Amino acid sequence: MQKNILWYFESFNFLDSLSMKEKMELSDRAKMIEAKKNQIIYLPSDISNSIYFLKKGKVKISSFSDDGKEMIYAILGPGEIFGELAIIGQENREQIAATTENALICYVDVREFENFLATHPRLSLQITKLIGFRLMKVRSRLERMWFKSASERVKSLLLDLIDEHGIKIGDEREIRLNLTHQDIANLAATTRQTVTTTLNDLERSNIITYDRRRILVRNPKALE
Amino acid sequence: MQKNILWYFESFNFLDSLSMKEKMELSDRAKMIEAKKNQIIYLPSDISNSIYFLKKGKVKISSFSDDGKEMIYAILGPGEIFGELAIIGQENREQIAATTENALICYVDVREFENFLATHPRLSLQITKLIGFRLMKVRSRLERMWFKSASERVKSLLLDLIDEHGIKIGDEREIRLNLTHQDIANLAATTRQTVTTTLNDLERSNIITYDRRRILVRNPKALE
Repeated sequence: MQKNILWYFESFNFLDSLSMKEKMELSDRAKMIEAKKNQIIYLPSDISNSIYFLKKGKVKISSFSDDGKEMIYAILGPGEIFGELAIIGQENREQIAATTENALICYVDVREFENFLATHPRLSLQITKLIGFRLMKVRSRLERMWFKSASERVKSLLLDLIDEHGIKIGDEREIRLNLTHQDIANLAATTRQTVTTTLNDLERSNIITYDRRRILVRNPKALE
Repeated sequence: MQKNILWYFESFNFLDSLSMKEKMELSDRAKMIEAKKNQIIYLPSDISNSIYFLKKGKVKISSFSDDGKEMIYAILGPGEIFGELAIIGQENREQIAATTENALICYVDVREFENFLATHPRLSLQITKLIGFRLMKVRSRLERMWFKSASERVKSLLLDLIDEHGIKIGDEREIRLNLTHQDIANLAATTRQTVTTTLNDLERSNIITYDRRRILVRNPKALE
């Protein structure tokens, strides 16, 4: 089992600053979950007591309003970390983390991880960078909501998804995420109707083609 | 001069983990600016080469769209830090920092500060917490934009301003920030018209009274 977890940690760019010996030390402190599709990893108000490493599959980070409106913060893929605010003293989760397909997830108790960080200053800096990077991303989403129209936000979102999950096929980019129009709306902070209209317009202009399982962006530059 | 800067650093909660000797070391590396009202400290695309400590006065952190729409991220007061993303490798500023009243600002070259951090792990953790705290705040603004009506956002903003800048007068709270209705709109991500309507409604309900220089919140609970 621990050998599996080590294999797991080996693929995290995030952990590049660690030697093999240090990765083994970290994997000794880690546990693994084999999660099914749509399994909840944590909910708002759950105690923030672990940091999670996603090895395989996809995890959606989102939150809900009292009346059930969803905001999707991210759809994370293999090699990504979540729940990291536990490290800076967040007591309770504020978001929902749930798988959107079968996943392998590793987790380390936050106090164990803190002890580990105390003796690994370069990894500390990596955590700071991760949080700072997420800050820059959320700021840019906030600016988009305030500065851009809803259909421009859908186009910007497609560019983000290309960056994060895009598979290169010649000049085209494929996004295989099984997103519904409502998911795209919750990512771009707009309505499902706007998403449908915008995607249909983009398809008519031959910029994308899409079906239930994937979006093929034929002309990524046209989205800029 | 260096003695002044030391006095300056003494008032930063942020630097609590440092001994007096360490604060002196840091102040040896720092320079001070006496900035006039409306002086620009940095602009988007300026090189991110310093971290700033605000001793006195107020600094507004904002950004502008191509067509001149402003988003205000924060109005910082004494004891607060800005430009901190320089530490995690941000190459160019993405926002504008400008004083809104006469200010005293200290700054440290980011490479000098990094050297200092390398030998002060507890201060590193403080930086991580600062960035994490800002991440949580921006996330909650994003959720408000998506989950709440414009007038609810204005009320939430007033509660934030009480938290950050409120002066306690019995059960009442005074916000002395000289904010125009347009400033409040740019903080709450809504229109000036909505701000005017909402503030007038709140005044009619005897929840606030306000003039050009300040907002007196007579009944903070009514804003929740």
